[in-house]
Amino acid sequence: MTKEQNGIDTQKKPHILVCNDDGIEGEGIHALAAAMKKIGQVTVVAPAEPHSGMSHAMTLGVPLRIKKFFKNSRFFGYTVSGTPVDCIKVALSHILPSKPDLIVSGINYGSNTATNTLYSGTVAAALEGAIQGITSLAFSLTTYEHADFTYAGKFARKLARKVLLEGLPPDTILSVNIPNVAESEIAGIVVTQQGRSRWEEDAIERNDMYGNPYYWLNGTLLLLDNDLRKDEFAVRHNYVTVTPLSCDLTSHGFLGTLEQWNLQK
Amino acid sequence: MTKEQNGIDTQKKPHILVCNDDGIEGEGIHALAAAMKKIGQVTVVAPAEPHSGMSHAMTLGVPLRIKKFFKNSRFFGYTVSGTPVDCIKVALSHILPSKPDLIVSGINYGSNTATNTLYSGTVAAALEGAIQGITSLAFSLTTYEHADFTYAGKFARKLARKVLLEGLPPDTILSVNIPNVAESEIAGIVVTQQGRSRWEEDAIERNDMYGNPYYWLNGTLLLLDNDLRKDEFAVRHNYVTVTPLSCDLTSHGFLGTLEQWNLQK
Repeated sequence: MTKEQNGIDTQKKPHILVCNDDGIEGEGIHALAAAMKKIGQVTVVAPAEPHSGMSHAMTLGVPLRIKKFFKNSRFFGYTVSGTPVDCIKVALSHILPSKPDLIVSGINYGSNTATNTLYSGTVAAALEGAIQGITSLAFSLTTYEHADFTYAGKFARKLARKVLLEGLPPDTILSVNIPNVAESEIAGIVVTQQGRSRWEEDAIERNDMYGNPYYWLNGTLLLLDNDLRKDEFAVRHNYVTVTPLSCDLTSHGFLGTLEQWNLQK
Repeated sequence: MTKEQNGIDTQKKPHILVCNDDGIEGEGIHALAAAMKKIGQVTVVAPAEPHSGMSHAMTLGVPLRIKKFFKNSRFFGYTVSGTPVDCIKVALSHILPSKPDLIVSGINYGSNTATNTLYSGTVAAALEGAIQGITSLAFSLTTYEHADFTYAGKFARKLARKVLLEGLPPDTILSVNIPNVAESEIAGIVVTQQGRSRWEEDAIERNDMYGNPYYWLNGTLLLLDNDLRKDEFAVRHNYVTVTPLSCDLTSHGFLGTLEQWNLQK
């Protein structure tokens, strides 16, 4: 029985599916795949094109194509002509020989904190994994440019090892946000809740060359949280945030009140 | 001060924004708008095209257009060339003069129960309303054909009145699923939780005329729930289900365990 340098039994080497929403050419997925290759056998299945803000969208009216993607003439992974959720579905049904041990999604350009969680294709890919009964993680870096994935990759690997060991409850993923700073500037690692920060000024109006208006979704994230237990606040203070998210959207706390409404009448 | 027949003070007549994901030509939004017109002042803003399965997707890379939509030569509402979430964002920022009192989304063709909740554009439009601080409801009918919206419209109106009176907690919507049967066959109205039923066999493979494979997402909803407190089970037994959903995906029950992982080390 052979052992690898990292001490993991190769006969039990975990199979890790890597996905993202920035598309297979995004730098972040290359950093994440490289990090995961140190602890497992990796298959990359990612959107052919960027799909930021696609949330849990899936493609219903159009067929999907699978293609091989090469980087520097070497096979890197598969592209799917659809959304992050499409990638997970097609990977599980037609690309992988069996269920992977872990799904990791990212590393996303830009944080997926607070209400952004709902728009995120990166988070949705991990949630789709959880729906399919697979341990899943989402990773995001708080920048759209000058990204340094060094520490993020390292932390992703560390957390993946931990999660492979400990497991996660059913229907639950971890969504990780990492400040885009050097490791020495990381303030710490905190377990957080999804904050309430949200976008303001959601669409700007412009006129086309014929004088007809069109609208671009746009805005700034309004910080509505003020403690380190909330993801957006903590990540702005250079903490790595680890937020457990559930596929179960039920507002359990409101069930009792709602039952007292006597809707039967 | 004038009063309307329905007893609502017209000077305080609630302003209701009506949206959907089947697009402005879907029968369900016409039934819902008609139901709401009996209790409030209605503005319809819906996708120009069907957007089923679009979840909380928003349009980032393409500008949006707003158009007026006429039905039988009478103005019915506005279309937005995007997703249900785009519609809510653009309606609030550029169409409505002020925040509406209520957002209703639907009536969707097909149930939005269990894990379908995450894929649903109908539910996402209501969740976007809740993010924006507006009381919001989503309605779905359990059929794709031979839809009879009579009872669904009646129940939507009844629930809208109740919710305008009672309000909802922050970040919380109600997602309602209505069996496609006559009112006499409705077994009752139950407050439910999002069930765990999910789709199986997610993509079928076919070959194109050149022999190259393509994939259609497809499948059957696997019933994994077996009691009336779960939406999919209850609606299959002809109950109207009312499920409170939250924009906060945090798995609060797992926070404590996760903190004990000591991720700092």
